[in-house]
Amino acid sequence: MMTDMYFTETDILVPFHDVDSMEIVWHGHYAKYFEVARCEFLDVIGYGYKAMRDSGYAWPIIDMRTKYIKPIRFGQKISVHCSLREWEYRLKLEYIIRDAVTGEKLTTGYTCQAAVDMTTGDMCFESPAILLQHITQHYGKLPA
Amino acid sequence: MMTDMYFTETDILVPFHDVDSMEIVWHGHYAKYFEVARCEFLDVIGYGYKAMRDSGYAWPIIDMRTKYIKPIRFGQKISVHCSLREWEYRLKLEYIIRDAVTGEKLTTGYTCQAAVDMTTGDMCFESPAILLQHITQHYGKLPA
Amino acid sequence: MMTDMYFTETDILVPFHDVDSMEIVWHGHYAKYFEVARCEFLDVIGYGYKAMRDSGYAWPIIDMRTKYIKPIRFGQKISVHCSLREWEYRLKLEYIIRDAVTGEKLTTGYTCQAAVDMTTGDMCFESPAILLQHITQHYGKLPA
Amino acid sequence: MMTDMYFTETDILVPFHDVDSMEIVWHGHYAKYFEVARCEFLDVIGYGYKAMRDSGYAWPIIDMRTKYIKPIRFGQKISVHCSLREWEYRLKLEYIIRDAVTGEKLTTGYTCQAAVDMTTGDMCFESPAILLQHITQHYGKLPA
Repeated sequence: MMTDMYFTETDILVPFHDVDSMEIVWHGHYAKYFEVARCEFLDVIGYGYKAMRDSGYAWPIIDMRTKYIKPIRFGQKISVHCSLREWEYRLKLEYIIRDAVTGEKLTTGYTCQAAVDMTTGDMCFESPAILLQHITQHYGKLPA
Repeated sequence: MMTDMYFTETDILVPFHDVDSMEIVWHGHYAKYFEVARCEFLDVIGYGYKAMRDSGYAWPIIDMRTKYIKPIRFGQKISVHCSLREWEYRLKLEYIIRDAVTGEKLTTGYTCQAAVDMTTGDMCFESPAILLQHITQHYGKLPA
Repeated sequence: MMTDMYFTETDILVPFHDVDSMEIVWHGHYAKYFEVARCEFLDVIGYGYKAMRDSGYAWPIIDMRTKYIKPIRFGQKISVHCSLREWEYRLKLEYIIRDAVTGEKLTTGYTCQAAVDMTTGDMCFESPAILLQHITQHYGKLPA
Repeated sequence: MMTDMYFTETDILVPFHDVDSMEIVWHGHYAKYFEVARCEFLDVIGYGYKAMRDSGYAWPIIDMRTKYIKPIRFGQKISVHCSLREWEYRLKLEYIIRDAVTGEKLTTGYTCQAAVDMTTGDMCFESPAILLQHITQHYGKLPA
């Protein structure tokens, strides 16, 4: 599956308040880095938070995984590569965090989101057409 | 002004994720301890978050101050004393955090909240009657 | 594998500041609930944060997964079941979050930690004996 | 007192995870915006976290105040103006948060920090010379 062009890169400067008493980013804060990257990806394809709302769907996270390869420190500039992996039944985005200067791989992970119809409150078995339209409009076609 | 009976005490066990690289609670996390104590105070007088909503008012924080006397550490059991200071025009609650074991004073602070009418979105110049009713119902009378 | 007795149960009252604009707990905050439960499990077997430090090992999280089954709301009382799953090469703890009142399953997840020798900074290929000693001392034997 | 040139401006894009169920930034998160701005100010004068450490002093926050004028929302671009107010006995920085596009004033606040000698653990009655040197070196002179 060739999905290489379906991604964004988001730079983040790690703040002091994300670091724990081991002087490394507390593992729970990575969800914030993934989210900032995910918001940029979704904004880029024109389906950010407000567009989601207007479309009548919420997209709660139903699954998240994080693999911590190397610690991240206060003041470190990191780059979050966010790429589209699944879209048909749910929205799966994959993340690779690298040191923005050296390129060293620090973290990998993913999130899965499912569409919830905001009028009925029901989870959708398939992604609503609006998601696929935004992907297609922005990238010219769906991933192969 | 005698407001001594208008208070609650809330115990909190400080979690690891609140501690920064100096091995003390990061100063920004104290707002959470104040909030947990404030929610207990408001629940006790029967005017917690849901009752507020049902009453047609939101009560955003408009002013908050924290004085850090002694550092707080991971695993420390703290006790937050939350007392009513003002109610007529705004709701001012005062906080004293003590070590739950030794009683040593660690922190003081306050929050001020103003009522916002949720139908008009306007801030109220005086506290709506519903707040004073809840204080009176619970304590028998308003503070002198 | 019978590991059923190797667990703790930790009750948490969900605070207002964990809830996002969808009025449900923001997915990234679950790492805090897991951590509070994990700290209790480790304290129970006598190998909490301070004991870890004294033993010369840090135990960073190297992998974390969370599956969100049902949303959690402000004021909900939840119970986090934390059970031992792996110990020989790394420490894997599994979490099940239930509504503390109804028992309904809300979330599942796990964390994996590996020992890091604090003098050399090297990650250990096997768990140091001290972890197994604490499990054995508390439960009488290792899980089968 | 003319301290107008002793400031920095830091732009922040408000993330989704800072917004509460009222759809506005939860009041406790403003401490993060102040901190990001403060770190930039201190980096600019060459006395950031690492320089502080190397100088043998920690600078814990001993007092913080926040006045919430207008709510801040997800996706809003804000600008934090951080200016030097006191330096002789303690370090007092003042913050004004404005909408980065319209310039509307949203929040004001301050933090006070005192130097702690890291070898003795004692709080200093006066700011150590190193702080004043950094201010002087960067701005040419101390504020009048």
